[in-house]
Amino acid sequence: MPKQVDHEERRRTIAEAVVRVVSTRGAEAASLRAVAAEAGVSMGAVQHYFTTRDQMLLFALEYGNSVLSERVGRLLAERRPATPRENFRLLFTLLLPLDEEGRAGARVWAALIARGCVDEPTSKLAADAYTNLTAFVVRGLTDAMTDHPASATDVARSARHLVSVIEGLRWPVLFGVYSEREALDVLDAQLDQIFRPARG
Amino acid sequence: MPKQVDHEERRRTIAEAVVRVVSTRGAEAASLRAVAAEAGVSMGAVQHYFTTRDQMLLFALEYGNSVLSERVGRLLAERRPATPRENFRLLFTLLLPLDEEGRAGARVWAALIARGCVDEPTSKLAADAYTNLTAFVVRGLTDAMTDHPASATDVARSARHLVSVIEGLRWPVLFGVYSEREALDVLDAQLDQIFRPARG
Repeated sequence: MPKQVDHEERRRTIAEAVVRVVSTRGAEAASLRAVAAEAGVSMGAVQHYFTTRDQMLLFALEYGNSVLSERVGRLLAERRPATPRENFRLLFTLLLPLDEEGRAGARVWAALIARGCVDEPTSKLAADAYTNLTAFVVRGLTDAMTDHPASATDVARSARHLVSVIEGLRWPVLFGVYSEREALDVLDAQLDQIFRPARG
Repeated sequence: MPKQVDHEERRRTIAEAVVRVVSTRGAEAASLRAVAAEAGVSMGAVQHYFTTRDQMLLFALEYGNSVLSERVGRLLAERRPATPRENFRLLFTLLLPLDEEGRAGARVWAALIARGCVDEPTSKLAADAYTNLTAFVVRGLTDAMTDHPASATDVARSARHLVSVIEGLRWPVLFGVYSEREALDVLDAQLDQIFRPARG
């Protein structure tokens, strides 16, 4: 079914164009017209794939989020950090806006949060993203702690703590208030908390 | 000069209307028309005070931010927490979206971040807000630590850590992923870190 493949590819091409517009000019600038121009297709083509602008933005934000997850998953698999602590450090470093790809991801994330505040389906998408990230960290921590197992409650709290730190570092870093060094110092202090040798 | 007073008041009334529109429907919905309707003034009146929509949004986001700061300052002064730890706990609890006022503040903050990603003056405003919040926490920690003074570097790192935690808790709480209890558990764990008795 080659036609089906084209269909999906076209949808993705448009979503990529939306993500680029959102990342460089904000969600507000992502009109059907601007997206069609960015994707190099007609406005009719955009409308063929997305009935409404809200639908288009939602799909694009979801797509942008999945691209970010895939990038992180791929780099974690490629670099194979030697210890759980290094694994987490890499994961969270990739979520910080420290290079152009990270900054673009953060800008799309900001659009996701802002739209999530006033649009119900986007709110659901943002909630799913935080739920999945937290669950991912819980699994990682549980695997890492086979030596000195912690209670499920403690692991869940540590995961929420880590997710909060990294989420909260994003914006002061993006706006140039915290340097890369300062952000990594906070991240390392948090990882020290979690991966300190068990006392006993 | 009563005319000057009216002028400032009118500007503030319009800013309040912008903040309400942004908080309930998003920055995108804050057209001159929508703001004029919300403020109960003519579009000409809005344009008299703000030449461009960007200028209007910037002023309103700055105003929204100052209202939040004033609220926090007022409640801290009113409730006079007994210990520095309680003082910080109250401060940060007020920044979390735990009641309708806090949620409205978070939604305006999301708009500030998202616009800051693509608009230079808003980026400057967001940077100032993070700089001021961090400096405020540094001063509070320095005052609190007269018993066991820490190095300025440690205090600055602790302040950035605290600010990150609270910033990062905002969104999972707003989107219903972390409960109030779960968010306060993370905050308390972080405060435990900072206010643990000096070892020695």
